[in-house]
Amino acid sequence: MQQAIAVLDSGVGGLTVVKELMRQLPQEKVIYFGDTARSPYGPRSAVEVRIFTRQIVDYLIQFNPKMIVIACNTATAVAIEDIRERVSIPVLGVISPGARAAIKHTRTGVVGVIGTEGTIKSKAYEHALKLISPNIQVYSEPCPLLAPFVEKGLFGREQEQEIVEQSLQPLIGKPIDCLILGCTHYPFLMEPISRVMGPDVTLISSADETAREISTILYHRDRMETSGKLPIHQFFCSGEPTLFKRITESWLKDQIAITPVVWQVPTIF
Amino acid sequence: MQQAIAVLDSGVGGLTVVKELMRQLPQEKVIYFGDTARSPYGPRSAVEVRIFTRQIVDYLIQFNPKMIVIACNTATAVAIEDIRERVSIPVLGVISPGARAAIKHTRTGVVGVIGTEGTIKSKAYEHALKLISPNIQVYSEPCPLLAPFVEKGLFGREQEQEIVEQSLQPLIGKPIDCLILGCTHYPFLMEPISRVMGPDVTLISSADETAREISTILYHRDRMETSGKLPIHQFFCSGEPTLFKRITESWLKDQIAITPVVWQVPTIF
Repeated sequence: MQQAIAVLDSGVGGLTVVKELMRQLPQEKVIYFGDTARSPYGPRSAVEVRIFTRQIVDYLIQFNPKMIVIACNTATAVAIEDIRERVSIPVLGVISPGARAAIKHTRTGVVGVIGTEGTIKSKAYEHALKLISPNIQVYSEPCPLLAPFVEKGLFGREQEQEIVEQSLQPLIGKPIDCLILGCTHYPFLMEPISRVMGPDVTLISSADETAREISTILYHRDRMETSGKLPIHQFFCSGEPTLFKRITESWLKDQIAITPVVWQVPTIF
Repeated sequence: MQQAIAVLDSGVGGLTVVKELMRQLPQEKVIYFGDTARSPYGPRSAVEVRIFTRQIVDYLIQFNPKMIVIACNTATAVAIEDIRERVSIPVLGVISPGARAAIKHTRTGVVGVIGTEGTIKSKAYEHALKLISPNIQVYSEPCPLLAPFVEKGLFGREQEQEIVEQSLQPLIGKPIDCLILGCTHYPFLMEPISRVMGPDVTLISSADETAREISTILYHRDRMETSGKLPIHQFFCSGEPTLFKRITESWLKDQIAITPVVWQVPTIF
């Protein structure tokens, strides 16, 4: 039985990690859990987010995955150490891959970070960046409206430009040469964010970078799937599944067109 | 005593990894070995390259490094498994990081690879790419003139454009959207290669990507240096050191301006 990579998020944001994961590692099986019933995590207390993350990991671990990916910046910021102590398989978050990528890309040493209130308040990116490169300068900005906007399936509509412009306003004119999209929901808004920040600011998707690091870790642990067979993925959400399914199918359409998907709504919480 | 990252190459090529390593991980100590007396490795037999690599690793291991980086594509292609069996610390090569980065960047699934005769003949990139993503299409081209040209310190001179144009000729017009610089010497020629390939082909430096993966591996093994102190690097070469020292000082000028360096020529081989 093929062991899966288990990916979790507060809702649909982690699908940006999954999309890259399926593209970069087409032979790997994915089990995804979106906690849509309790989304967004951004405004919640650290304690609450830790409890939710623990519940989901306890649920996912029954499928005997080979790796847990916390594809939610808010949960990574406050719960990753707790989860690492809880399970014996590798646990990847989305913060340190984004930080490492920003350090690779920046030439000026001045980096911007956007995220939920919870992520920005935790200073997790600032800590991860300065741990590696102590002289780096960081401008952080919470964007509390963006993840809920994506979660409602409103990306791609007319209003997205306006809401992104408003959210990023405090960063305009700051001397940053790259901007970490410190929330896995934000790649859904890549185009308007890119238009607002302009061509001189490189956007770092913590989702893309996490997929790349999953590949690195599996390779170095000799746990890559190389059977050549197509995996059967599994998707779970904790809330009403109609919107979750619609967003998933539209976001992953190129990927799930060629690989079978099983949908489930567990009644655990 | 701070444990170093030990980096080896046939000559000065591995300095492209070291430059990125010092930039991305400014707190890490580097011990570098350039086998300038026996460079280039490209035209040598696999058996010979394996013996040389083993000798250098045996020499470097006395410094008690925390990681070995084979910053030479030719040596990675034929010797990495041998070295992994020989030492108990992590051994990183430059091929799989380049392959993973190309998979992340390509949109068309058609990738070019240039390298020494030894690297291209080994099909190591093709194998690494297809292991992860079986449907990827690869165009490979040996460029035997380029590494010796860099090794002679001739990069940046007028002839570089001509020699790069000649070397890359067979790849012009091929439907690739990214090109793996599958030799650590090639980032010295980044500008002429970029001019010849044009803006639509992304250049993947196996050097940059390896530095990024070193960072990932150290982080996940909890072996990152975070003391905040400046490391003292050590550089060794097996041949006459004048040219090696000149190239190293010019290539790493921004990095070694702020960190002390010790130079040595061992008389071991």
